[in-house]
Amino acid sequence: MNRPAAIDFYFDFSSPYSYIASEWINALAARHGRPVRWHAILLGVTFQAAELRSPVSYPLKREYSLRDFARSARMEGVPYVMPSPFPIPTQNAARLFWWLDATDPARATDWARAGLRAFFTRGVDLSNMSALTGLAAEFGIPAEQAAQVCADPIWKDKLRRENDAAIAAGVFGAPFFIVDGEPFWGNDRKSQIDRWLSGDR
Amino acid sequence: MNRPAAIDFYFDFSSPYSYIASEWINALAARHGRPVRWHAILLGVTFQAAELRSPVSYPLKREYSLRDFARSARMEGVPYVMPSPFPIPTQNAARLFWWLDATDPARATDWARAGLRAFFTRGVDLSNMSALTGLAAEFGIPAEQAAQVCADPIWKDKLRRENDAAIAAGVFGAPFFIVDGEPFWGNDRKSQIDRWLSGDR
Repeated sequence: MNRPAAIDFYFDFSSPYSYIASEWINALAARHGRPVRWHAILLGVTFQAAELRSPVSYPLKREYSLRDFARSARMEGVPYVMPSPFPIPTQNAARLFWWLDATDPARATDWARAGLRAFFTRGVDLSNMSALTGLAAEFGIPAEQAAQVCADPIWKDKLRRENDAAIAAGVFGAPFFIVDGEPFWGNDRKSQIDRWLSGDR
Repeated sequence: MNRPAAIDFYFDFSSPYSYIASEWINALAARHGRPVRWHAILLGVTFQAAELRSPVSYPLKREYSLRDFARSARMEGVPYVMPSPFPIPTQNAARLFWWLDATDPARATDWARAGLRAFFTRGVDLSNMSALTGLAAEFGIPAEQAAQVCADPIWKDKLRRENDAAIAAGVFGAPFFIVDGEPFWGNDRKSQIDRWLSGDR
């Protein structure tokens, strides 16, 4: 018997909608007997490739977006505190993700959840090396080792290749999901993904 | 007893997500005992004010958007045929809307539905004057009268003022909904609007 195909889930540690989606994607997939393959990416890189910008970079859209982040979290039942500074560069959190992923994808997923929750509920600034390594230490990665991983050309390069692969797969934002070749963009595509997995296509 | 407050619904005749939303907004509002106030606007004008562009103007986003238009319509149970040309200028369809609205808002809403359905199920090019006046004639507006309304400075000016009012109200895309002061952007906010109207805020 074949293993059921994984759902690809692309997220950025600084993306509110990625955070919200990260809280439901595995449970939703499990209801359909599907595993989830998590991919840490840098939204800034995909925005650049697609000639897009963050919604909060547009003055009129910013106010709405901040409101919608909080409302969408509330309606999903996910705790949410708007962090400041926001958005933040997340390459170091993502490098740690790919480092863990190389040997233990489930632990990488746990790290992703820990990072997203820390930023979006406690405002832990993942772009600040001492805050990041402090969080890593809480998670069980010695701070010094975490700092070494972030500075290691191997993981810098790995993240670069993963970003390129995401762009090649058509990813232009986050969260982004690919289910059996079908692309879904946004936390708000949850019910469509659920129906798609039920065979309602 | 006060009349229940209307939901403001902003749409553009060339917006696929506006079309899909136009097919559910009145039924959803009616379930909550609410009337709906329709507003024909020009997305190009709101995009300009917000420094935004249409999603289909971004190469990487275009392919996804076209797919998502059709999928979103299908999942909503709304017939949909991708029109060509697309997008189209819709100022004339919108002027006819505001002309009807001045004396009979319900009939203006019917015209909006007729125009959206004609464009998104039969590809009737609302930017083509003879196609537009032909549709108007089917709807019961003599073609010559429709052409006069479209050329009349009164309705050009009315549409301009309605666009300005929408921008002043914070509208930067379509469909856009304002419910008791709360803004919702996108066909995909349907369930949030439903829950908001149920008192789940």
